[in-house]
Amino acid sequence: MSLPPEFHHIAQRVNNWGRWGADDEIGTLNLITDAVVRDAAATVRTGRRVPLAVPLRQDGIQTGMVPGRVNPLHTMVAVNAEMFGPGTVATSDDAVTMGLQAGTHWDGLAHVSHSGRLYNGRPAASVTAQGRAAFSGIDTARHIVSRGVLLDVARARGADRLPEGHVVTPEDLAAAEELARTSVRPGDIVLVRTGQIQRYLAGEREAYAFPSPGLSLRTPEWFHARDVAAVANDTLTFEIIPPEIENLWLPVHALDLVEMGMMQGQNWNLEELSAACAEEGRYAFLLSATPEPFSGGTGAPVAPVAIL
Amino acid sequence: MSLPPEFHHIAQRVNNWGRWGADDEIGTLNLITDAVVRDAAATVRTGRRVPLAVPLRQDGIQTGMVPGRVNPLHTMVAVNAEMFGPGTVATSDDAVTMGLQAGTHWDGLAHVSHSGRLYNGRPAASVTAQGRAAFSGIDTARHIVSRGVLLDVARARGADRLPEGHVVTPEDLAAAEELARTSVRPGDIVLVRTGQIQRYLAGEREAYAFPSPGLSLRTPEWFHARDVAAVANDTLTFEIIPPEIENLWLPVHALDLVEMGMMQGQNWNLEELSAACAEEGRYAFLLSATPEPFSGGTGAPVAPVAIL
Amino acid sequence: MSLPPEFHHIAQRVNNWGRWGADDEIGTLNLITDAVVRDAAATVRTGRRVPLAVPLRQDGIQTGMVPGRVNPLHTMVAVNAEMFGPGTVATSDDAVTMGLQAGTHWDGLAHVSHSGRLYNGRPAASVTAQGRAAFSGIDTARHIVSRGVLLDVARARGADRLPEGHVVTPEDLAAAEELARTSVRPGDIVLVRTGQIQRYLAGEREAYAFPSPGLSLRTPEWFHARDVAAVANDTLTFEIIPPEIENLWLPVHALDLVEMGMMQGQNWNLEELSAACAEEGRYAFLLSATPEPFSGGTGAPVAPVAIL
Amino acid sequence: MSLPPEFHHIAQRVNNWGRWGADDEIGTLNLITDAVVRDAAATVRTGRRVPLAVPLRQDGIQTGMVPGRVNPLHTMVAVNAEMFGPGTVATSDDAVTMGLQAGTHWDGLAHVSHSGRLYNGRPAASVTAQGRAAFSGIDTARHIVSRGVLLDVARARGADRLPEGHVVTPEDLAAAEELARTSVRPGDIVLVRTGQIQRYLAGEREAYAFPSPGLSLRTPEWFHARDVAAVANDTLTFEIIPPEIENLWLPVHALDLVEMGMMQGQNWNLEELSAACAEEGRYAFLLSATPEPFSGGTGAPVAPVAIL
Repeated sequence: MSLPPEFHHIAQRVNNWGRWGADDEIGTLNLITDAVVRDAAATVRTGRRVPLAVPLRQDGIQTGMVPGRVNPLHTMVAVNAEMFGPGTVATSDDAVTMGLQAGTHWDGLAHVSHSGRLYNGRPAASVTAQGRAAFSGIDTARHIVSRGVLLDVARARGADRLPEGHVVTPEDLAAAEELARTSVRPGDIVLVRTGQIQRYLAGEREAYAFPSPGLSLRTPEWFHARDVAAVANDTLTFEIIPPEIENLWLPVHALDLVEMGMMQGQNWNLEELSAACAEEGRYAFLLSATPEPFSGGTGAPVAPVAIL
Repeated sequence: MSLPPEFHHIAQRVNNWGRWGADDEIGTLNLITDAVVRDAAATVRTGRRVPLAVPLRQDGIQTGMVPGRVNPLHTMVAVNAEMFGPGTVATSDDAVTMGLQAGTHWDGLAHVSHSGRLYNGRPAASVTAQGRAAFSGIDTARHIVSRGVLLDVARARGADRLPEGHVVTPEDLAAAEELARTSVRPGDIVLVRTGQIQRYLAGEREAYAFPSPGLSLRTPEWFHARDVAAVANDTLTFEIIPPEIENLWLPVHALDLVEMGMMQGQNWNLEELSAACAEEGRYAFLLSATPEPFSGGTGAPVAPVAIL
Repeated sequence: MSLPPEFHHIAQRVNNWGRWGADDEIGTLNLITDAVVRDAAATVRTGRRVPLAVPLRQDGIQTGMVPGRVNPLHTMVAVNAEMFGPGTVATSDDAVTMGLQAGTHWDGLAHVSHSGRLYNGRPAASVTAQGRAAFSGIDTARHIVSRGVLLDVARARGADRLPEGHVVTPEDLAAAEELARTSVRPGDIVLVRTGQIQRYLAGEREAYAFPSPGLSLRTPEWFHARDVAAVANDTLTFEIIPPEIENLWLPVHALDLVEMGMMQGQNWNLEELSAACAEEGRYAFLLSATPEPFSGGTGAPVAPVAIL
Repeated sequence: MSLPPEFHHIAQRVNNWGRWGADDEIGTLNLITDAVVRDAAATVRTGRRVPLAVPLRQDGIQTGMVPGRVNPLHTMVAVNAEMFGPGTVATSDDAVTMGLQAGTHWDGLAHVSHSGRLYNGRPAASVTAQGRAAFSGIDTARHIVSRGVLLDVARARGADRLPEGHVVTPEDLAAAEELARTSVRPGDIVLVRTGQIQRYLAGEREAYAFPSPGLSLRTPEWFHARDVAAVANDTLTFEIIPPEIENLWLPVHALDLVEMGMMQGQNWNLEELSAACAEEGRYAFLLSATPEPFSGGTGAPVAPVAIL
């Protein structure tokens, strides 16, 4: 047992293994019932749509810090090719090479293991180079549509963006929930705004990556208590680095993905949404955020849209 | 002028150049107003969600017929890597190389040109190997959410799937509209089901590709008359090959994308949706289908979801 | 112990583990001494050069039979780009995605393991998704230049190419050696010609792949007895499939790569070389065949040249 | 005519268009005759081999300065996969995505155009996104083996490496030729050492890229006068940046590749070779440097070896 006792204490409290059966591969996505979706659709009032993905481009978010997580190399394989002869209709086609976690993405449940285990007690070794994730591949999510709630922590603290290294606590979430004038409910997808992505949007890639605000290892319990279906934020690493407990790296990943079976989203652009919610005075909306269904993917790009 | 007069006659009738201003890059997506989206959200009754994308895998849809349009090569760049030392939390990461039009995708407006022009009269030469599409890149769509209407042509004809080579006519669309018991309206996204994708799902890739049913060059006028925002179907090539008029290859692409500025979707799996609509006795729903925002992409993968 | 006794009997006889020290990573390449290379250079008489690689192109050798071993997707990332402004010098750049074993290539020693072991007793687990081959990566070869000897088995048997399924035996090799009027010597690189690649060159990819002639599991002893440095041939799989002993798949790979530590080359085009050797009446030459030095690669593309 | 008169004066003096016929695609490689290769093989004395390529790895030479010229993303597609069942022989396979000019490479003649023309007067537009280079693709080189001569400019000047921004002049080349105690002859491949690659080898990628020593626009005449077949050096950009004549960017590329039809090599590691030549007291050797034969490639990786 190499992780410290503090970790295991929290792990025990948030663990969902077996809750939806021994065969379950999708964890808290089970909380998004038809009824939750009906209610989510009913939140739509103005019909305004706000996209939450950053553009996919070679000059993207990655700095080279995570080996193999490469920015999109987007190339043309045909440019106005007249396939059927000169003067005919011409087509252009493109191809891409990219890390599945390079831009705005979901971490699938198989993205992280600890102590040799994935979500629901599956062996870590069920992820392999040739088969990819045998369980909990990102394609098992099928669809992700629910009520979204923006917890605008930066705005709740009166800041345009949180200071470097700010640890987002359960108290921060509660304050943002109050600002949102709604209660986070079972099946909700929570979007936590720090404002950090302003750095990337301003062209400061390195500053965006680190140092960055991020979620405290105390937040998984808060999400678990409310039976949240998934959480995304506007940072590169989601949580705080270096970690709150010495040598306990990536505890939030381990708690959310492995213990709870709750997917995490990263590099979501919540700036336009923050402005829209403030303007409309409401922070709940219909959120559509289905990942690209890579068979056995441990994560995937997503182009989320909030519908207000 | 290398395309035949028949083409130009139709082209004149469906042309939308200048309709949304000389600077417009998104064509009929302009028809999806906030009001349309509000009405679309109001169609949600059961909250059932149906995903419409085929899984992304190396054993995918492409047969090699279109050069460069490669099936996803999905590889792991890390498998349970303990980045912070032995016994710490471990992460797995993946990467992909794929054609943007390889699986379930949208054709962007810059995907096709004819007579040296793209939608809105832009020069075809504005698509280049280094800059990709300078206008009407797939990222300019920002979000695609609207009312979806399934025109289940196969079911309307009492077939499980249309015969090989069946040309889907305006009359077929009208019959399916009648089955759907709704009228196609401005801003709708129409999904035309032929059942052809059953071939791919049964492992018959070559048979899926060709010969295949597809849309007639008479259909663009039908969509134009109803001010449809976008059209997708469950085939590889969308339209009929070989074409209805000798040597007039890809006329529907040229009419929809270049003349009307209307995006086309291909390789959408409409089987589960067909069953759900028949079961619920209604064929209109909320459709969320935002493409991955590749900067200057001429197309992009999409993971559409119908919300009933 | 899952491999049959026949295998282990041969394995014992050809095993080179420890022969060049416990730390050795390159096996029989050690046999290419400076003296061998001096003698090899002295074989050059006419100065004629014969390239042995097939062109790298999307319409390449692979048929999809081996998952992930994809043909080159060669794309332009810039086409006559005037990076420094209009009218300046323009540059074109390209990129590629390909399987390292997709075309004319060397199998590195880490390409194959059996019973959990690689060459020199290294654990198979030293090959990982993130680190690639920790031992015997293709880059450890550094340079491959030696005397090459063409054993033209097809010609020795009076055939243009060997029949489908012909098993190349030690007796075949001896007959070809006689035709070559030279004795295979320590440090030589032996090229075994079956003529099978004519199939690929004629556009018959599937027929090239299978059924194909290939080397018998009796050949490793022949090579071992002569202290050959490496062996390449003009087939996709190098050896016979299905194998000579039921359920003993890839025994030659296991004997050559794991037991002897001898690299194998595949998909080498030996047609032009065969004609040149016949014409000049000699089958020994200087061979230069250094693989692309991918760090930790388990194989790599190579562009070999015979210098006569 | 956008390039300055100074450029055109030199261009006229070094132009080789038509010299080897209107159909020629390989330029000065024509100067490598069989006789040249025989003489080159005769230079081999010790049999020592020195590899000149840098390893291909994700942590490679490129800094992101040239869009699309990405470092190798080298991934495993199989790790000890037991394709034929548990306990059978296991195989590992890998794949790569990389810019063809990312590491140690040759620029093909189609890599550069000026005033709308490539080598031999071909239209620049013969390079396209779908067909790649229709003329002078890197595969037309077939084989590159000749006498190599190291012009060790750094050593000739008594330096370990040339200072940042040092312009290598014809006088520098002459001094290095004197040190080499051989005369550069028709068909030779000249390797010009600046020592700059020490920066990359020391982990200083940015410093390696810029500022860097490089060849003067006066050197093409020197190479032309001696009928050199090809030239390579140990820098990222080959020539000096910013250029010697204001706004005349990449003049050496335009003179060597377009006017002379002479290939250029970049990012060659000449450090070990420099030591070996100094030790053996001779700077001429057999050089084998055939590029990977990408069909229509405008450049290609190469794993050159000097054989002393």
